[in-house]
Amino acid sequence: MALLKSITEPADLRRLAAAQLTELAGEIRDFLIRTVCGTGGHLGPNLGVVELTIALHRVFGSPFDRLVFDTGHQSYVHKLLTGRRSGFAGLRQAGGLSGYPSRTESVHDLVENSHASTALSYADGLAKAYALDGSDRRVVAVIGDGALTGGLAWEALNNLGACDRPVVVVLNDNGRSYEPTVGGLAGQLAALRRRSGYADVLALLEGAPERSAAPTPSELFGGLGLGYLGPVDGHDIAALEAAFAAAREYGRPVVVHCLTRKGLGYRPAETDDADRLHSIGVLDAATGTPVKSERTWTHAFSDELVALGSERPDVVAMSAAMLRPTGLHPFAVKFPDRVYDVGIAEQHAVTSAAGLAMGGKHPVVAIYATFLNRAFDQVLMDVALHRQPVTFVLDRAGVTGPDGPSHHGMWDMAALGVVPGLRLAAPRDAGTLREELREAVDVTDGPTVLRFPKASLSDDIPALHRVGGVDLLRRPERPDILLVSVGVLAGAALAAADELAALGHRVTVVDPRWVRPTPPVLADLAAEHRLVVTVEDGVRDGGVGAAIATLLADTGVEVPVTVLGLPREFLPHAGRGDLLGRCGLDAAGIAAATLDSLGRIPTATTA
Amino acid sequence: MALLKSITEPADLRRLAAAQLTELAGEIRDFLIRTVCGTGGHLGPNLGVVELTIALHRVFGSPFDRLVFDTGHQSYVHKLLTGRRSGFAGLRQAGGLSGYPSRTESVHDLVENSHASTALSYADGLAKAYALDGSDRRVVAVIGDGALTGGLAWEALNNLGACDRPVVVVLNDNGRSYEPTVGGLAGQLAALRRRSGYADVLALLEGAPERSAAPTPSELFGGLGLGYLGPVDGHDIAALEAAFAAAREYGRPVVVHCLTRKGLGYRPAETDDADRLHSIGVLDAATGTPVKSERTWTHAFSDELVALGSERPDVVAMSAAMLRPTGLHPFAVKFPDRVYDVGIAEQHAVTSAAGLAMGGKHPVVAIYATFLNRAFDQVLMDVALHRQPVTFVLDRAGVTGPDGPSHHGMWDMAALGVVPGLRLAAPRDAGTLREELREAVDVTDGPTVLRFPKASLSDDIPALHRVGGVDLLRRPERPDILLVSVGVLAGAALAAADELAALGHRVTVVDPRWVRPTPPVLADLAAEHRLVVTVEDGVRDGGVGAAIATLLADTGVEVPVTVLGLPREFLPHAGRGDLLGRCGLDAAGIAAATLDSLGRIPTATTA
Repeated sequence: MALLKSITEPADLRRLAAAQLTELAGEIRDFLIRTVCGTGGHLGPNLGVVELTIALHRVFGSPFDRLVFDTGHQSYVHKLLTGRRSGFAGLRQAGGLSGYPSRTESVHDLVENSHASTALSYADGLAKAYALDGSDRRVVAVIGDGALTGGLAWEALNNLGACDRPVVVVLNDNGRSYEPTVGGLAGQLAALRRRSGYADVLALLEGAPERSAAPTPSELFGGLGLGYLGPVDGHDIAALEAAFAAAREYGRPVVVHCLTRKGLGYRPAETDDADRLHSIGVLDAATGTPVKSERTWTHAFSDELVALGSERPDVVAMSAAMLRPTGLHPFAVKFPDRVYDVGIAEQHAVTSAAGLAMGGKHPVVAIYATFLNRAFDQVLMDVALHRQPVTFVLDRAGVTGPDGPSHHGMWDMAALGVVPGLRLAAPRDAGTLREELREAVDVTDGPTVLRFPKASLSDDIPALHRVGGVDLLRRPERPDILLVSVGVLAGAALAAADELAALGHRVTVVDPRWVRPTPPVLADLAAEHRLVVTVEDGVRDGGVGAAIATLLADTGVEVPVTVLGLPREFLPHAGRGDLLGRCGLDAAGIAAATLDSLGRIPTATTA
Repeated sequence: MALLKSITEPADLRRLAAAQLTELAGEIRDFLIRTVCGTGGHLGPNLGVVELTIALHRVFGSPFDRLVFDTGHQSYVHKLLTGRRSGFAGLRQAGGLSGYPSRTESVHDLVENSHASTALSYADGLAKAYALDGSDRRVVAVIGDGALTGGLAWEALNNLGACDRPVVVVLNDNGRSYEPTVGGLAGQLAALRRRSGYADVLALLEGAPERSAAPTPSELFGGLGLGYLGPVDGHDIAALEAAFAAAREYGRPVVVHCLTRKGLGYRPAETDDADRLHSIGVLDAATGTPVKSERTWTHAFSDELVALGSERPDVVAMSAAMLRPTGLHPFAVKFPDRVYDVGIAEQHAVTSAAGLAMGGKHPVVAIYATFLNRAFDQVLMDVALHRQPVTFVLDRAGVTGPDGPSHHGMWDMAALGVVPGLRLAAPRDAGTLREELREAVDVTDGPTVLRFPKASLSDDIPALHRVGGVDLLRRPERPDILLVSVGVLAGAALAAADELAALGHRVTVVDPRWVRPTPPVLADLAAEHRLVVTVEDGVRDGGVGAAIATLLADTGVEVPVTVLGLPREFLPHAGRGDLLGRCGLDAAGIAAATLDSLGRIPTATTA
């Protein structure tokens, strides 16, 4: 650790000799394995970019030159080289180091976004700005081969290639997203990888100084008008430095194709074809196995989809590069012809699912809630306008936790609330997840959505009774308060009801099951109470509670509605329970808000 | 017209001899020019695909084989050849023929969507479904070169190229979207166009039967794993038929590259470099000039942006292939270095604008309201999360009219309402548009949005007074009703207030100007009235009115709120005023809804 401890800013790197750089790389790997296994975080991607990041910081002068990391989970090495080593003990914990670049952490960080495929567009914009200023600041975008399957990256390449602004695209090609990267492009890159030996970058450069005559090795990038250097051994610091230095002087947009091995230097990661060490919880560092393992919502979905697949040959499954994280892998094993992994390409996942539905299938698109925002227009226009039966299963909905603001899946219920004909259910437990998944795939005339959190499963919560599609979970005599609980918050709502009951209140708790559109029976139920409190783990503005308030206003039910939900803010990284509590969505918070609302109701209006 | 009249279904085409086909093409052009100049509609694109569409219907057997038209405004010829000639008199009018494919019109229509770049994804999904069924139905996607700049098309090509499903991609290459197509790909296609003469398609096919050895002429498509046939003269029916027949038997995904001339056969269209005849209002067919020309909201924006550009060197402008339709052309003429047309690539427009903002510029992204949905995630994550000052100017917001459900810009205020830190203004007239645009570009810490309709400008509506950022437009003594009017509906709200005043009511009318976030002063204003009525030309669910109701509930103001807006439905094509009236958003509708709400208020709660 002697060398790593001596590095507090990128300039320190430039004082090291070649042998020291190799030693430093080893120290960084040891540090990453030890600390990330202890905190959880992104391990595999960072082990793959140790040498690449060292070379970048030796050749380019951040922060004058700008380094943009696509899908910023590959920025741990960058953090170590820019003075943040001591922060790793608190990685991804409340108040601690972010798992992504963070503008408040360092002047070397620019883009915090962890949604893939954005770096080239940011770089294009930065390069345009610097060109207007007449500045010679260099802009470097580091992007994985997996992120090139995203349409946004293609749009950016098409624009970069048409101009002469000197953007350096560092293609970190490890051949996979989680699964091996899919698509025609992946085949093209693989062919380059199979060539014997690496290219002599300087010879390539000398042989191809002019754009018009450039016979670049990659038909693809050349076809778009970008220069190409490589392939380069992504673990050979000297070769990387030579390539980056050539790219820095290239004078127009150029791709530096670096071949890396995800997880290099950590045997459990190197030997895991399933890439389970891409993003980890707390691990036993010696074996690479999780310290604890519990049954999650993802498992419940996964099992039920396999059962459905056996019963319904028309059910097919769709993933955007996340077959395993979304629980589709068992379905893929059992029905290999009926699963489609389209790469990091959420738009295509949704629109091609609409095509599958037009062809008579019922696609189940399994995706993280935050990533469906990438395909909002496709859900609205390509699926809903055409009334196609596509089921979206949103994992990681609500508060997600340590991945922070770009991973919290808190926008879905509000944004999707505008989509005509769309039905959305938030299961409260594994039993309702199974039931609602079956209801969803039975719908034939439009999109359906299920959403559930990244969390372990608790015991099922039985319903006393179902009325108008709404489950009554708690129903006292002569009730005065109606708690409408959305999805996984049912447990907290019931606990809050118990707290309120201990104070003498009579609290009904219902789970609407399908929250979009709003079940009309909620108006009748509300009319029997003197206060309605709605509880959801989605953004409060335009969410489920607001829609229930509108329903009551429309139907002339004059019972006040208190809407509890997540604030219209980007929530930081922290534990899931911690964040929910801070937002008042635990039992104590729900009970307190209810009491506060009760205190504001004029007693004359008591039912 | 004798031949055209004889065609009622595609099979009729197959009985015609070569000379008759040429004659038919001429009849179709005459028919299109005469009818579309009379009704308005998309003229240029359809004149370019006459021969291409005839050849498609001779080679492929729709509806068994499936034809998917990207950006369906190029489907008029297809409509003529599938029995819908008589409907053209009512084109794009209420109850008449849609300007796009329509599943209710014909079994030959599949995809109604007019947002670009979707066809390849639909085709991929359809081909997957037919492959599962073991069916040999062919799937053909017709897509323009302009639409290939969209990331969704790239995602689809990457997936198509990796599989062997026999999708035929007909690339209708006319070299432009509105403006000449931008980007590295466009340069690649132009190089192919410049080759001397057209390819002998069958020779190409014979020379390249195997994927692994295929030296296709196009580096690009070949690099992605697709076959390539062409270029083919897109106005030579026999050549097109030969190419399509070869593609039909190709056995794996293949691009047929057809070179066409937009507007062919209509001199005013052929000679208009600005492509003003792409989509037209009612024209004088002899000259190609509009029958009427009025000053629109677009003009007011356009002029003010040029003025701002002179004052503020940091202001830059961004377009997604629509410099002229969005009013950016005068800015582009005056400040050619400060305008960026990224092609049909809304995601890249937004994220590269975030990059420009990080580089110290203030980008103004001018875009149709409905198309910003394409970049919802980029607005949320790439701009708002990073608190970047980017101004979005949404033209065609609200009810648009004859372009129908996929063009109505009715989703923006609800969907963008969830975005933290985003400020949204809806100007009521040209004066407030100018004022609010200046306020928007003065914001330094997050996104701003202006939205206005596709409409002629009316006279400015002066404010009596401004309080807490809200303009009071009408303010009687001892008022009882508060009308909150969003943007362009101010005129209708004021007229409704006059109607209500004639019945003895005392109506305040306010324009909140900035409707996201909700101005807090609205709670104070509401408290002085016994009824609040909100009026907006956006979807009612989760819209501005719902947010105002939430504000009142949060602040303990117990005045009932009636929310008027557009229903959560896909509105059909029809005149803008007609549709607004049907949705109750004209003066009579607002007055009637207000009276209805008044009737439901218990008199005991009178203020």
